[in-house]
Amino acid sequence: MTHFRTVGIIAKQGDINLTNTLSTLISFLDEKGIEIVLDESAHDLALQRPTHSRKELVNRCDLAIVVGGDGTILNAARSLACCDVPLIGVNLGRLGFLADISPEEMTQRLDEILAGNYIEEPRALIGTEIFCNDTLVAEYNSLNDVVLHIYGDIRMIEFDICIDGCFVSSQRADGLVIATPTGSTAYALSGGGPILSPSLPAIELVPICPHTLTSRPLVVNANSCIEISLSGQDNAPAQAAFDGQSCRPVTKDDLIRIRQNDKPLRLLHPNAYDHFHILRAKLHWGEQP
Amino acid sequence: MTHFRTVGIIAKQGDINLTNTLSTLISFLDEKGIEIVLDESAHDLALQRPTHSRKELVNRCDLAIVVGGDGTILNAARSLACCDVPLIGVNLGRLGFLADISPEEMTQRLDEILAGNYIEEPRALIGTEIFCNDTLVAEYNSLNDVVLHIYGDIRMIEFDICIDGCFVSSQRADGLVIATPTGSTAYALSGGGPILSPSLPAIELVPICPHTLTSRPLVVNANSCIEISLSGQDNAPAQAAFDGQSCRPVTKDDLIRIRQNDKPLRLLHPNAYDHFHILRAKLHWGEQP
Amino acid sequence: MTHFRTVGIIAKQGDINLTNTLSTLISFLDEKGIEIVLDESAHDLALQRPTHSRKELVNRCDLAIVVGGDGTILNAARSLACCDVPLIGVNLGRLGFLADISPEEMTQRLDEILAGNYIEEPRALIGTEIFCNDTLVAEYNSLNDVVLHIYGDIRMIEFDICIDGCFVSSQRADGLVIATPTGSTAYALSGGGPILSPSLPAIELVPICPHTLTSRPLVVNANSCIEISLSGQDNAPAQAAFDGQSCRPVTKDDLIRIRQNDKPLRLLHPNAYDHFHILRAKLHWGEQP
Amino acid sequence: MTHFRTVGIIAKQGDINLTNTLSTLISFLDEKGIEIVLDESAHDLALQRPTHSRKELVNRCDLAIVVGGDGTILNAARSLACCDVPLIGVNLGRLGFLADISPEEMTQRLDEILAGNYIEEPRALIGTEIFCNDTLVAEYNSLNDVVLHIYGDIRMIEFDICIDGCFVSSQRADGLVIATPTGSTAYALSGGGPILSPSLPAIELVPICPHTLTSRPLVVNANSCIEISLSGQDNAPAQAAFDGQSCRPVTKDDLIRIRQNDKPLRLLHPNAYDHFHILRAKLHWGEQP
Repeated sequence: MTHFRTVGIIAKQGDINLTNTLSTLISFLDEKGIEIVLDESAHDLALQRPTHSRKELVNRCDLAIVVGGDGTILNAARSLACCDVPLIGVNLGRLGFLADISPEEMTQRLDEILAGNYIEEPRALIGTEIFCNDTLVAEYNSLNDVVLHIYGDIRMIEFDICIDGCFVSSQRADGLVIATPTGSTAYALSGGGPILSPSLPAIELVPICPHTLTSRPLVVNANSCIEISLSGQDNAPAQAAFDGQSCRPVTKDDLIRIRQNDKPLRLLHPNAYDHFHILRAKLHWGEQP
Repeated sequence: MTHFRTVGIIAKQGDINLTNTLSTLISFLDEKGIEIVLDESAHDLALQRPTHSRKELVNRCDLAIVVGGDGTILNAARSLACCDVPLIGVNLGRLGFLADISPEEMTQRLDEILAGNYIEEPRALIGTEIFCNDTLVAEYNSLNDVVLHIYGDIRMIEFDICIDGCFVSSQRADGLVIATPTGSTAYALSGGGPILSPSLPAIELVPICPHTLTSRPLVVNANSCIEISLSGQDNAPAQAAFDGQSCRPVTKDDLIRIRQNDKPLRLLHPNAYDHFHILRAKLHWGEQP
Repeated sequence: MTHFRTVGIIAKQGDINLTNTLSTLISFLDEKGIEIVLDESAHDLALQRPTHSRKELVNRCDLAIVVGGDGTILNAARSLACCDVPLIGVNLGRLGFLADISPEEMTQRLDEILAGNYIEEPRALIGTEIFCNDTLVAEYNSLNDVVLHIYGDIRMIEFDICIDGCFVSSQRADGLVIATPTGSTAYALSGGGPILSPSLPAIELVPICPHTLTSRPLVVNANSCIEISLSGQDNAPAQAAFDGQSCRPVTKDDLIRIRQNDKPLRLLHPNAYDHFHILRAKLHWGEQP
Repeated sequence: MTHFRTVGIIAKQGDINLTNTLSTLISFLDEKGIEIVLDESAHDLALQRPTHSRKELVNRCDLAIVVGGDGTILNAARSLACCDVPLIGVNLGRLGFLADISPEEMTQRLDEILAGNYIEEPRALIGTEIFCNDTLVAEYNSLNDVVLHIYGDIRMIEFDICIDGCFVSSQRADGLVIATPTGSTAYALSGGGPILSPSLPAIELVPICPHTLTSRPLVVNANSCIEISLSGQDNAPAQAAFDGQSCRPVTKDDLIRIRQNDKPLRLLHPNAYDHFHILRAKLHWGEQP
């Protein structure tokens, strides 16, 4: 008997290399008598199954299996987190920070997880509200990060950072990464940010190519209200990007307000999950001698 | 009427430039009818008052005023934190991260604080246990940091880091800083670590001159159990330093175990306290244009 | 008697704050009996003098005085260097790395320089050739830098670096700065590059937000032939920018070849010129205590 | 017939793992009829050959083969460079930056080199003079670096840097690395310095854990005269280390003067030598995909 009765399957959009893995997965779940809701992202993969909208998947399933890379999980996470649907990540053969189950071990690990043997790890998302002249004009969710950055030519922007209503600093830079612990191993790391433990109740702010040489990454409480606004007289065109997947131009009239979401993503791992093992493997730290 | 009836005064050891400030402070408290317990650190300052041991001060006082710099507060914090005695820091004329009241504004700010108008900010300490062949041989407290470092010649050491029993990484470096949020603006910052909000329940690990080029600062949960041990066959002499004020040689037989203390330091600030203002002033970030 | 008989004046394009300084400068040179060639950049500044094309200025003058900021000098340098016309930089009241004479001291310093009392400092430029499928399609000169960078969305690019025909490395990053010593205090510094002495026969390569954590700035000989080409299968749109003032899209079919120019810019300074003083002032290092 | 008639052999002091490689090397040279001068460093290795002082080796040989790691070469370089004796580095099985011939390919590569097929690469050394109250008290040579550093407890030092008689900056830090291009991949790299091309006529200055957040690595001309002196009132004990192999305490009365030596080390490589290949292999940059 299993914990999970209806399982959604979400695939990396249009990647035909996934067909074998998905077929194996579907057969495996069929044998277990588990109902499958196949996401529309798998529509073109010739799996001879009906596909369904993400909305329907989220409403019907009590578990989602995402097959692809970390990018596919980022995308899925934003629709699953708000509905409390837990997620398992299967990678394409290359270990991901989030997609930690390989195709080879997929059925064995799923056997364990479906039998209730798993680790559930909450991963915080951050929500962004964009106000234009005090009117809320857009909202976004991010599992990794919000990146305010120059758009187009290399000309720095100038912006003010406020936290919980207190002015922090004015910066001149190519941009600013506001990242969750999950995002701390993504773009923020390239910008020189620290690696945060996944469960740390924190948000990090990492300047990109700061002109202010004394600028340093900041790590603030997850319950902080972070506000960013462009301040320079002659700013280059700027954009805000959310998990690198959605984006929006930003002007001097805009205020970007970022807060942690109430509901985290529920990420499931096999019992053998070891976060530091993944860090070592992905960052080439090497194993214990 | 005041919240505090007995106030301890702790001074930067033997700094005769403090005599005027301390005299003013003593007169101010006398006028208020507040009992004073003068710490033995002020013994040589010709204040014509009896001095008392730190132990007596801690037992009798319900508030301590520390006059000096951040170093004096680090020292005082370790004796005050365990006994719940709150601390106010008066600096020597140069703003400190912790000693945030200047001599000029001292009596005005103390007036407010003694009347109950203050901000109380808990600042976490970390405790270190050193085990030699499994036997506990020493214990230390730190408000800023524990630094494992080479002692003497420039020859790197090799050490293993474990967190909550999980192996994290083997590093070859000049050392490792394990810092509280308070310590994130001290030595850890010189080593390239991020700045942590004072209230963040976190501990940061910052390698010093790592040979592993992929090594990055880590920020972990404050409730983590961090264990460090030397691992190389041919390590240089090593030492652990606690707030840069106590230290102890470390050998291959030693295990360094670090955990956050149960009791934080209770740091009192005037109501106008603004942590980011101090960051900007100390790090030369400049004010809002 | 003076070394220089015909002096060109180049101004920051259309900056009306310059009118007073330029009037003073023109009167000063008139009194000395020096012929003036006013650049077309000063056309809108109501100086009641004819203006001339940059080409005419370069052909007729034996000295150019550039009034503006470092950006104005970057622009002027590219036309002056190839013709051996020396350049003096007058700033707008804020010290520049290149425009080191303030309006207040302008006439006094020019008096000295025109009398032959000056330091001549050669500043190397780098030339870029862009080949598309082996055909030379464009050429640019830079006094500061060439920047290969993502254009638009934050998605890294992948590129190969070759030096003198030898493969150096494949990088995944937001971009790469190739800078002269003069450019080492500009954008390259924000990217984490070192500061090079102005006379060092070197070119530096500084990756921007590298994904490869072991990536480090490289400093190579000025006579190196540096070749960069995009290599990834799925690169984001990319652009090359020259001194941040000209730019050009770059695709997988392009090869970017960079070499130092034969002729450096001849930059003149007053005898009191002190490069390290400017570094300290601009980078806020503080003076000797 | 060969270019080289008398070959010195220098071994990593007392490393018995070298015996086989050295025996092979000796037989190989004997067969060629080349005279061998065995350095005293091989005395304990049971090679049944007389050993000779380094001085005799340097006087008699027209080539030295150094078997060991980069550390052994650093040591040998300082005695060979001044006498124009070229050097070949054989490693112990792990590629070095300098010891680039593996034991397995040793005889084949030496065959080529002895036949005159090799690349000769000059590697600059830097010389340090230490003056105490204006009297020269000590001199050292370094192939990699001079490191001024705190000795013992972690307490920063304060020092002034002058270049060619001009004051550059006052720094508060754990130390300063002054490195040759060869040394730029050694300790300077751990401190955040750039990688310099081996032939670049440059010296780099890299602060270690600087308190001044605006401090950055500097790269200056190889013909610069670099002077360092302690300046703080209350400095921690300090030491200067030369290639990490010799060292000397430094006090406030000392002036450290560093200049490039006239004679570089003559390092010989097989014709297939590729510096960037070694960088990629040692720094884990990976090969061209």
